[in-house]
Amino acid sequence: MAGTSESRSVIEFRPILRVVGYLLIGLAALMLIPAAVDAGFANPDWKVFITAAAATAFVGGALIASTSGGQSFDLGLKQAFLLTAACWLAMAAFGALPLLGLGLDYTDAFFEAISGITTTGSTVIVGLDASPPGILLWRSLLQWVGGVGIVVMAIVILPFLRIGGMQLFQTESSERAEKVLPNVFQLATWITMLYIFLTVACIVAYVVTGMSLFDAICHAMTTLSTGGYSTHDASFSYFTNPAAHWAATVFMLAGAFPFVVYIKMARGHPKALWQNPQVRGLVRFLLLSVGAMTLWLYFTTSDGLWTALRLSAFNIVSVVTTTGFATADYGQWGALAVGAFLMLIFVGGCTGSTAGGMKVYRHQVLWIVIRAQLLRLASPRRVVPLVYGGRILPEDVPASVLAFTAVFMATVALFTVLLGAMGLDLVTALSASATAISNVGPGLGPIIGPAGNFATLPDAGKWLLSIAMLLGRLEIFTVLVLLDPQFWRT
Amino acid sequence: MAGTSESRSVIEFRPILRVVGYLLIGLAALMLIPAAVDAGFANPDWKVFITAAAATAFVGGALIASTSGGQSFDLGLKQAFLLTAACWLAMAAFGALPLLGLGLDYTDAFFEAISGITTTGSTVIVGLDASPPGILLWRSLLQWVGGVGIVVMAIVILPFLRIGGMQLFQTESSERAEKVLPNVFQLATWITMLYIFLTVACIVAYVVTGMSLFDAICHAMTTLSTGGYSTHDASFSYFTNPAAHWAATVFMLAGAFPFVVYIKMARGHPKALWQNPQVRGLVRFLLLSVGAMTLWLYFTTSDGLWTALRLSAFNIVSVVTTTGFATADYGQWGALAVGAFLMLIFVGGCTGSTAGGMKVYRHQVLWIVIRAQLLRLASPRRVVPLVYGGRILPEDVPASVLAFTAVFMATVALFTVLLGAMGLDLVTALSASATAISNVGPGLGPIIGPAGNFATLPDAGKWLLSIAMLLGRLEIFTVLVLLDPQFWRT
Repeated sequence: MAGTSESRSVIEFRPILRVVGYLLIGLAALMLIPAAVDAGFANPDWKVFITAAAATAFVGGALIASTSGGQSFDLGLKQAFLLTAACWLAMAAFGALPLLGLGLDYTDAFFEAISGITTTGSTVIVGLDASPPGILLWRSLLQWVGGVGIVVMAIVILPFLRIGGMQLFQTESSERAEKVLPNVFQLATWITMLYIFLTVACIVAYVVTGMSLFDAICHAMTTLSTGGYSTHDASFSYFTNPAAHWAATVFMLAGAFPFVVYIKMARGHPKALWQNPQVRGLVRFLLLSVGAMTLWLYFTTSDGLWTALRLSAFNIVSVVTTTGFATADYGQWGALAVGAFLMLIFVGGCTGSTAGGMKVYRHQVLWIVIRAQLLRLASPRRVVPLVYGGRILPEDVPASVLAFTAVFMATVALFTVLLGAMGLDLVTALSASATAISNVGPGLGPIIGPAGNFATLPDAGKWLLSIAMLLGRLEIFTVLVLLDPQFWRT
Repeated sequence: MAGTSESRSVIEFRPILRVVGYLLIGLAALMLIPAAVDAGFANPDWKVFITAAAATAFVGGALIASTSGGQSFDLGLKQAFLLTAACWLAMAAFGALPLLGLGLDYTDAFFEAISGITTTGSTVIVGLDASPPGILLWRSLLQWVGGVGIVVMAIVILPFLRIGGMQLFQTESSERAEKVLPNVFQLATWITMLYIFLTVACIVAYVVTGMSLFDAICHAMTTLSTGGYSTHDASFSYFTNPAAHWAATVFMLAGAFPFVVYIKMARGHPKALWQNPQVRGLVRFLLLSVGAMTLWLYFTTSDGLWTALRLSAFNIVSVVTTTGFATADYGQWGALAVGAFLMLIFVGGCTGSTAGGMKVYRHQVLWIVIRAQLLRLASPRRVVPLVYGGRILPEDVPASVLAFTAVFMATVALFTVLLGAMGLDLVTALSASATAISNVGPGLGPIIGPAGNFATLPDAGKWLLSIAMLLGRLEIFTVLVLLDPQFWRT
């Protein structure tokens, strides 16, 4: 009785589960790559990947089979929110499976997988240098896929979810990009092609500067995705050639620029890069902070000017682009550097890139609003237009950015207190919270600093930080919306 | 040639200097009180106060004499900004003079005076118990005057300067209060009378619970002003009667409630207190955080439930109301407490009270905006009115609060990095920056924590923190506006 009407819930879940199913099939296929590599290296771990791939494919297939039917793929707004969160969660939950083969428990494996897929780069694995190649490649692959995933999501989905002022980029993707690219699938294809092209260029640069091909492939994938997983416990300082550090600095930055700009450049507008307000803002900020840090290092350490410049540029670009490689333990650079690196975690890359964090355009919108406030305080009758990148800011953007900034800070504060309740000291708790929500990677202090590791944190702390990484990657609101009871009513 | 037109600058300074002159005469008169007390205790320090009073009165008189003329006291908007900053700076610069008699250098004396007049309460004096009574009274007097000064400023001046969303309270002071009180001078008189009444009530409570009359007077003045200067190095833990701690908790809270509410209560609307949205928000927040901290202390220490409640209530209310008294070194309460107390520094009291910090209403506006964002994300066509205290938020308030919050956080970050450059560790630098800008008083860590003292900081750090305290007290924008070159044109 009333069968069909009762079986229809308020939100139709089947298309969501179906997409997740296809995604898992793709993930299972991806697991065959490290399986092949392990088999090629005659490493018995290939069986782990085959088993994980089989399990993942089975669940994926079951989801697809159980949701078959005539429904279209037209997703509503609420379904888009749900789908976004479900995709990232499913990728982490199943991406963790192969890591169980390394002897990690599921907590550690899930932490490592979500740190990978969100391109955060915090690791709980000690002894990377001795780990099987398949596992190392899998960690890099997770970040690489997570990187292109977030770019596509930021350009194609987020602007229409209007998260934290992202509506600013509706016009960017629709008017500007779609004018030359007729539809979303073509846009996603272009992004993927450019992403592959940049990764290959990075591999070449790394090989030329002395890396083994395997290291070059793994690091190129985690450089462009601004993820920061390394195949060595010593992170990037394992590589001694300064040219490799400079190459990494350039390609980390390339990963943190908006990918729409690359499409424009590839289609005959080479000036598009420097015309982009986010790119200009990020480069100017980096020049300023790298310059200041270089002088600080030059005058407070025995490093020469070039070494100081290289160390500053690499490590600042690494944190600001939310990559998280390290060529030095900047925790030892003195109190100024420690404070500065804490603040740098809050900068973030450009929207529409693989980088996380608060994002450059939000800082720019805040600055524009503050500037207008100052002018209006002194001359209340003055009309101060809020102009960003040559265009008037849409009316609802300042409030969206306000809400995002406040929620971001409140989330960092909440997780700091919760991590403190687990016994972590203030510097560790605060930097762990900030680095996870910003998807950077390393924190500060002896435990989780650039020379440290997340392995010794309590299990509950690892789950908390897993939630924090997911929140950060999905711009917080995407998840918060789902927690609101209102969301689930009509 | 062209004499009169050339002598007129863009902004007319004379009325500003004239008001500062009258203020200095008042400050000089105030110095006669500790002079009399020192003379009464047969302490030779009374000469220091007489000398300081003479110098202050001389400068004040000179300012008045040199600016005499027919100009009216009608201040323009720009003059109001300048006057506000000039008043607080002059009070600190001259209020520091008597402290030189204690053997402090001017850096320390200025730090102590501006920490007093801004009701911050960070101290550089070691050995308070052995200090002359005149000096102790002077420190308390500075806070007491600073306290009433900020209430009058917040109710009478700031709403019309439209600082950080304060325009929200234009209606509060004009419509609601002025409906019963015909003009600003009467409003200021009422506030002062109520302030004196509450202070006397606090003195009585302190004497009844066992303080000496001198201690009761000094502490009552720094309780109602949410300043936090004590006459003992051990701060409030010098007093062992639990009843005194509860009395202080109540009166610190009284100092952090909006004074307009008291006027309404005194004029026959006793329910006005609980009808005030800021009061409700602050009390609810305190109940929640004191409850949580009580349980934490109860389960992690050997304290009984009542002791845990008293310690939590006193110290949390002290930090949230930006008073800064301490009855325990909460730096020793475990990692959760340290993180929580750092975050509590960012709460602040109600606007229109003597408390500093971000202020309750700003958190409430942020919450309202975030809540509306969440609702609109899920249902974009939904119209979500922003209602605060039963009324629709004025259109420009969210952006003002956004600008304030962002500038507040950026200022904390900037001062943290600058203090780090002076060699302070991250916890000290971050908490010093936050506690100064929020006008709380103690920071965290062994140096400046509740059991510590600011005496050992480098001189440059003391000047930096002096600027931070002034910025915080004047809601940052009042000072920033003056630094903007645009302000000085036309």
